[in-house]
Amino acid sequence: MALLKILLVASVLGIAVWIGVNLMFPGSPPELDPNEWWGEKDLRGKQDTSIRPFKIKFTDEMIKDLKSRLSNHRKPAPGLEGAAFTYGFNSGRLSWWTQYWSEKYPFSDREQFLNSVPQYVTNIQGLDVHFIRVKPKVSKEVTVVPLLLLHGWPGSVREFYEAIPLLTTQTEGYDFVFEVIVPSLPGYGFSQGAVRPGLGAAQIGVIMKNLMNRLGHKKFYIQGGDWGAIIADTMATLFQNEILGMHSNMLMVENTCSTLKRLIGAFIPSLIVDSHLADRMYPLTKYISYLLEEFGYLHLQATKPDTIGVALSDSPAGLAAYILEKFSSWTRMEHRLKEDGGLTFRFTANQLIDNLMMYWTSNSITTSMRLYAENMSNKNRALDIGRYSSSVPAWALQAKNELFYQPPHMIKSKYSNLLGVTVLDDGGHFIAFEMPKVFAEDVFKAVKAFREFHKTKTEL
Amino acid sequence: MALLKILLVASVLGIAVWIGVNLMFPGSPPELDPNEWWGEKDLRGKQDTSIRPFKIKFTDEMIKDLKSRLSNHRKPAPGLEGAAFTYGFNSGRLSWWTQYWSEKYPFSDREQFLNSVPQYVTNIQGLDVHFIRVKPKVSKEVTVVPLLLLHGWPGSVREFYEAIPLLTTQTEGYDFVFEVIVPSLPGYGFSQGAVRPGLGAAQIGVIMKNLMNRLGHKKFYIQGGDWGAIIADTMATLFQNEILGMHSNMLMVENTCSTLKRLIGAFIPSLIVDSHLADRMYPLTKYISYLLEEFGYLHLQATKPDTIGVALSDSPAGLAAYILEKFSSWTRMEHRLKEDGGLTFRFTANQLIDNLMMYWTSNSITTSMRLYAENMSNKNRALDIGRYSSSVPAWALQAKNELFYQPPHMIKSKYSNLLGVTVLDDGGHFIAFEMPKVFAEDVFKAVKAFREFHKTKTEL
Repeated sequence: MALLKILLVASVLGIAVWIGVNLMFPGSPPELDPNEWWGEKDLRGKQDTSIRPFKIKFTDEMIKDLKSRLSNHRKPAPGLEGAAFTYGFNSGRLSWWTQYWSEKYPFSDREQFLNSVPQYVTNIQGLDVHFIRVKPKVSKEVTVVPLLLLHGWPGSVREFYEAIPLLTTQTEGYDFVFEVIVPSLPGYGFSQGAVRPGLGAAQIGVIMKNLMNRLGHKKFYIQGGDWGAIIADTMATLFQNEILGMHSNMLMVENTCSTLKRLIGAFIPSLIVDSHLADRMYPLTKYISYLLEEFGYLHLQATKPDTIGVALSDSPAGLAAYILEKFSSWTRMEHRLKEDGGLTFRFTANQLIDNLMMYWTSNSITTSMRLYAENMSNKNRALDIGRYSSSVPAWALQAKNELFYQPPHMIKSKYSNLLGVTVLDDGGHFIAFEMPKVFAEDVFKAVKAFREFHKTKTEL
Repeated sequence: MALLKILLVASVLGIAVWIGVNLMFPGSPPELDPNEWWGEKDLRGKQDTSIRPFKIKFTDEMIKDLKSRLSNHRKPAPGLEGAAFTYGFNSGRLSWWTQYWSEKYPFSDREQFLNSVPQYVTNIQGLDVHFIRVKPKVSKEVTVVPLLLLHGWPGSVREFYEAIPLLTTQTEGYDFVFEVIVPSLPGYGFSQGAVRPGLGAAQIGVIMKNLMNRLGHKKFYIQGGDWGAIIADTMATLFQNEILGMHSNMLMVENTCSTLKRLIGAFIPSLIVDSHLADRMYPLTKYISYLLEEFGYLHLQATKPDTIGVALSDSPAGLAAYILEKFSSWTRMEHRLKEDGGLTFRFTANQLIDNLMMYWTSNSITTSMRLYAENMSNKNRALDIGRYSSSVPAWALQAKNELFYQPPHMIKSKYSNLLGVTVLDDGGHFIAFEMPKVFAEDVFKAVKAFREFHKTKTEL
């Protein structure tokens, strides 16, 4: 605790000085090369830019190999007495998962389920990008608006499967419905990873914009959580004329103003946050302690993703432990105290293993983890997306157990057109996956507000 | 870089306030329970406390299984263009190591080599502790002094095999020679790990003292690097009457005084460190940047060791990448830029794989990593070993590429009887393993000084 207090005091004082020295008006956002090439050099100018249908394949060979790895996995040391998930994945629960995956997970049914939505691949800037595209079947009177859904780590497009039918079906009270485009991020699932350093969130934003343009959408709505939220934030900063509105379930503004407010609230929370939400931000020592305890994976992935990638590419049991730990604690922090990590509290084993399959089948864990290293490189940190304001209308969905919380006035320090905030008294980090109905309803509500905002602007 | 500057300024200011508030005189070191029980509860009072001979066994079954895992390992994603070891272990070098381990590593010869030193197991506080014990064959005129050698992570007793014969053979200029005791730390190699939380460096120090006592040594010398250095530091603090002298190749004093000095030197290095050694400590931003870049593994192991342990227990290729990365960068930081990580610059493949075998054969990677979590728990951090002074005579061996450096006056803020410092212009973190001759000579030199110190004290 002494260390935490020092960190706290140090941060407060340091940041105060920093603000004094650095407070300045933001300029214009940087302009990124819209054609930056991420694939093999030799393929430049030769790539097939058509949109090709795609199906996920669970081959017999892959299944056989996977089952053999799962059933032959070498057991790690037993967990410490009473540790549950507090030292990480409880090894006492491992065989339940390896056995379920190997013996009960219905591969063929799940493959069919995952292919129940139309999928495609197209090459953008040298990388084959995989995406789901569902157009709603509605009469001509109903307006169809394009919505890009962006997942994060260690999630995948699988997070949105339950929400997709809700978003693509017209609902009472709304005169529009969505065409959804759900890409696998580059390096995730069935989208290729870059062959050279540099592909951070902002650069992925460029790829996503190019993808939407190729599908005929010059202007569109975006939604994201986790990395998806960060990528959405960069898109709403870099492409303010193209993004019609941003719905985010992890909307975090990192600039001088929001940092200063967070620190002031450490001393007088009531100045910054409503009392019934104060425990989502404060005490700051608790928050820092939580960051230290839960963000080791981020530290490692931001620095040595290729090291840990070797073991996780080779061992499905290890991959399961590594990913499922996040679905346990990020859904409810208190699940660390449960023997089973509360993993099936809101998810079924099949749902969680579907998501593991996205990483295992495509062998994409290493490339997925590299995003941390790329986004935290000196070059990409220098872009400092947080400091630029955005006029894109925004909407925040704030689940009770989300990793971070910011009150509206902090978000407004960047997003002047924050049109709404939905504060949930339930739910966690993977909200679209955990509570698809609540999620879809909120997206409808947000986009209705965005559309009214644009209408009013046009009328003025 | 902006972030680093903020961190630096924040640290300086915060620490200054902290010192103002907290500067105080240290009391007496805490007293730890000398009989704390770390094994199964039911075995208390029933354990066999005899000293049993031990041999390392590479069973045919284990070798067959290991070879099959190595040759069937699933390749991770290719490395990024030009990345070498900068994103972690270069996956382009992986198959060289898996192939060597599986096809060329002479298992039977190496097993014989590892058993060329007498080994034993004895139960201390509920845990079977494995150790090498070599008594020198010398005439009665030569004094034999007991020396405890303590390894760290991701090393093992293997680090000392080349140094053992040098330490147990009389050398010109010295009227003494060593009996060496080289234990595997609890949870490492063939020593059992604790069954419940709490076994940090200080508690391991208690176990090590009990081990030496059981072998008939009431007073003894200690030597350590990495965790071994930290454990040696706790022993020299808690058992000041029993430890005759401490030789450390990673002697770091963490107290108010040393922290303050480190920070002052960030502004005026010449006040703190000789100019030819300044680049081992400063600029501080470089040091912090290096800590951030290289210590992700520590962050993860201090918080979620059991998660990553699942993959590393299951995948020898993953274990190799995870451990060898450290032997690359901790030997020479610039080896990160080499395609092959410079791994065989000072080590042979057999040497490095011997060390991997210590982890693989015993399946001890998870329990070994837990030491980070235990030592950084609130309870163990509260012990604050650094703040207590020690009168134990000390000696620091400082390799050029060691992870940390402190000048003598910083070490003397705790160790008033720092009798010598050897500054090497060569060598890295695993100095006993890398330069056994230099290491053994330095240990002789140090213990000669310790012995003279005690003689002088007796004569006074």
